[in-house]
Amino acid sequence: MNPEEKLKALQIELPTPYNPIGNYVRYVQTGNLIFIGGHGPFDNMVKGKVGQELSLEDGYQEARKTAINLLATLKEAANGLNNVKRIVKVNGMVNATDTFTDHPKVINGCSDLLVSVFGDRGIHTRAAVGMSSLPGNIPVEIEMVVEI
Amino acid sequence: MNPEEKLKALQIELPTPYNPIGNYVRYVQTGNLIFIGGHGPFDNMVKGKVGQELSLEDGYQEARKTAINLLATLKEAANGLNNVKRIVKVNGMVNATDTFTDHPKVINGCSDLLVSVFGDRGIHTRAAVGMSSLPGNIPVEIEMVVEI
Amino acid sequence: MNPEEKLKALQIELPTPYNPIGNYVRYVQTGNLIFIGGHGPFDNMVKGKVGQELSLEDGYQEARKTAINLLATLKEAANGLNNVKRIVKVNGMVNATDTFTDHPKVINGCSDLLVSVFGDRGIHTRAAVGMSSLPGNIPVEIEMVVEI
Repeated sequence: MNPEEKLKALQIELPTPYNPIGNYVRYVQTGNLIFIGGHGPFDNMVKGKVGQELSLEDGYQEARKTAINLLATLKEAANGLNNVKRIVKVNGMVNATDTFTDHPKVINGCSDLLVSVFGDRGIHTRAAVGMSSLPGNIPVEIEMVVEI
Repeated sequence: MNPEEKLKALQIELPTPYNPIGNYVRYVQTGNLIFIGGHGPFDNMVKGKVGQELSLEDGYQEARKTAINLLATLKEAANGLNNVKRIVKVNGMVNATDTFTDHPKVINGCSDLLVSVFGDRGIHTRAAVGMSSLPGNIPVEIEMVVEI
Repeated sequence: MNPEEKLKALQIELPTPYNPIGNYVRYVQTGNLIFIGGHGPFDNMVKGKVGQELSLEDGYQEARKTAINLLATLKEAANGLNNVKRIVKVNGMVNATDTFTDHPKVINGCSDLLVSVFGDRGIHTRAAVGMSSLPGNIPVEIEMVVEI
């Protein structure tokens, strides 16, 4: 199955990408690299820090939702997910307390979905780190670099 | 107006870029991409966290000052701002309390100036996030990736 | 001396690179750029925040250890360190208290080693910033972009 077929098999419907409020855009292409800026889960119901209001499992689910939003942007940027050659880099930023230690298990919610959809082409390098705060108190913000 | 003319019209005079203390430099070019490392407002008078010592408007002004410092480095790196093809990515890091939520409105101080100077070529993708602390307690640190 | 000879002269033996637990890898190459994801010192004995449990000098040593781990990954990625054309970008993230201000002096532990090994080709641009928390409470996490 190609990535678009895989998405359907996973019963994932990509949302309409959000419109940034400000002098910036969701992605910029340079050569065959697409830089996708910080995306969140965009879910007004789930807010707060992992390790405080939110559990590890909550964090995983929010990272997965964020990955779905990143895919919506990537589909537009690459003119279809089947044009993706490789997910290069994921920057996983967790809204976390200063004693939280399980950032990788949160960002796995994003990494696992990327590999489910893209297979070997979805295996990326990454960072998973703790931020003191994030916009609107979202639990996770994730960026990507993608090769097409 | 081209970017250099636009800067003059905005009555912005670029400072002499700072000299890093250490085994690193302000920017490195690879192919047609320039990676510009973390810059701050370099203003010894304004220190502290946005949401604590500093207001949102203070933060916006510090992000704008940081953008001016980034432009000073970019002018040297690109051998003139008119050679810039596209501002690709901005990484906006705010020295913020753990309850701060308006990082995008702070980093708009940088984004707005970039678009004022470069027009459509200044529209970038970005992240705007909260750091637990920054060097010398500066209120904001910003990086860029630029295509020439 | 080339970088491999320089490592020997410095009596540094590169460790076996760690195996990520999860759907990601230590590095991805795209064109002539290698993106190396977040590495830590991987030393179970030294944990905690710089400025709290750990001193500035501790932090410097942990950043140096992290650089050695990055070199182990880079050696594999570049098929030998002598193939490195330029260390482009270092992203130095310090597990720091919210009043810490000396992040650059910590990340110098990485920058100094890179320049010792690669000479002019090791001079990079960088960020040095404070994170609210890091995976497993490691004191520092560092990423790199390298041109080969």
